[in-house]
Amino acid sequence: MISLGIIGQGNVAHHLYKAFNKAKNIDVIKINSRKLTYITEVDIYIIAVSDDAITTVSSKINSKKALVTHTSGSVSLNSLKNNGRKGVFYLLQSFSKNQEVNFDEIPFCLEAENKKDLKLLESLAESIGEKVYYINSDQRKSLHAAAVFVNNFTNHMYKIGSDICKEHQVPFEVLQPLIKETALKISNLSPEKAQTGPAKRNDLQTIKNHLELLTKEQQEIYKLITKSIQNNGKEL
Amino acid sequence: MISLGIIGQGNVAHHLYKAFNKAKNIDVIKINSRKLTYITEVDIYIIAVSDDAITTVSSKINSKKALVTHTSGSVSLNSLKNNGRKGVFYLLQSFSKNQEVNFDEIPFCLEAENKKDLKLLESLAESIGEKVYYINSDQRKSLHAAAVFVNNFTNHMYKIGSDICKEHQVPFEVLQPLIKETALKISNLSPEKAQTGPAKRNDLQTIKNHLELLTKEQQEIYKLITKSIQNNGKEL
Repeated sequence: MISLGIIGQGNVAHHLYKAFNKAKNIDVIKINSRKLTYITEVDIYIIAVSDDAITTVSSKINSKKALVTHTSGSVSLNSLKNNGRKGVFYLLQSFSKNQEVNFDEIPFCLEAENKKDLKLLESLAESIGEKVYYINSDQRKSLHAAAVFVNNFTNHMYKIGSDICKEHQVPFEVLQPLIKETALKISNLSPEKAQTGPAKRNDLQTIKNHLELLTKEQQEIYKLITKSIQNNGKEL
Repeated sequence: MISLGIIGQGNVAHHLYKAFNKAKNIDVIKINSRKLTYITEVDIYIIAVSDDAITTVSSKINSKKALVTHTSGSVSLNSLKNNGRKGVFYLLQSFSKNQEVNFDEIPFCLEAENKKDLKLLESLAESIGEKVYYINSDQRKSLHAAAVFVNNFTNHMYKIGSDICKEHQVPFEVLQPLIKETALKISNLSPEKAQTGPAKRNDLQTIKNHLELLTKEQQEIYKLITKSIQNNGKEL
């Protein structure tokens, strides 16, 4: 049995608590970060608070016995300021309060100071999920940057697509199947090989036609990404 | 029974022929664009050739009785130069030769010069698919530009994510579930509402950390899209 304390009130804390509460061999409690000093000792703490608060919250954990972890993609292991063992329990997914989470699909990116703690975090992860990766602080930082491209920036491409549709009275739903197919395609094809379209073909007439119907800001993005797609082609 | 001639040797022609060949009430033949003048008359021609060749191929069709259509997202109806009726039979999806196509998922974007022909194209579409939209040439042009953003440019975001992973020895597969979730999320949430991340939160420290580990070209794209996400926030 692993005793676990989850610190935080946000979405990650909420979903983790729910999942661990159902897991066998895990005895989980939820902890308010302001009442940290009064709680019973646990084997592992998961600090699921905002990035800025991780250092302060960790410094309040007096236990030398416990393994203290945070859940942030962009904060290094050494930002933890407890006196004892340190680790990271980063889930690469974006959480919403009202959306059910399928933990079997979520990559658990784990880091610890030694193999034994890494194995402990792995058992913890496997009690609720399936996909476990060992990712050190440098790797996690770059993974977080990559996630911004494939998640936030991709979503912004959807936003621009949706704006263009609105502007020209086309229902955005027409694009939904293409959006899904684009995402599914790269599960068995590299993004290089999956690329198609006017930039890749250097179809200047179509590029010109598209630019004509875009706003200034959309044009700027269109030109820059088109240039970048073409650069990549040359580098191959 | 509708008699149909599909002109072309590419992926679209290939998949359309396969699908219509199985459809009830459709009598389909495949036509080589160079042998156009010798064929028996049909009710509808679908010209599935490269954009540049549509005008030339259409001008070779002598029939005044047939409805002549093309399948291009970026070519207007009036580029068809046959003497008789004109239409567009545009499928908003990217086709690969070896990948099975589920036509039930694909939006059929139809255009014709009159209601009767539009209905005829609708029957044709519904013999192999389910999702039918009436989209005129102007709408189709903007839809095609929007598709470049949600398909080609999104794929390029995956490409950059994959490059960052390679550079820092992280397996790209770690990002696959997030990619899928990002695409699925907007089927019941607008892209505006779905947006999260450092740009949206104006988390300057994280943005700075990310920029430090990117190449010059990646930085340029990161900055421009971050700015664009933030502009959209203000406009709300």
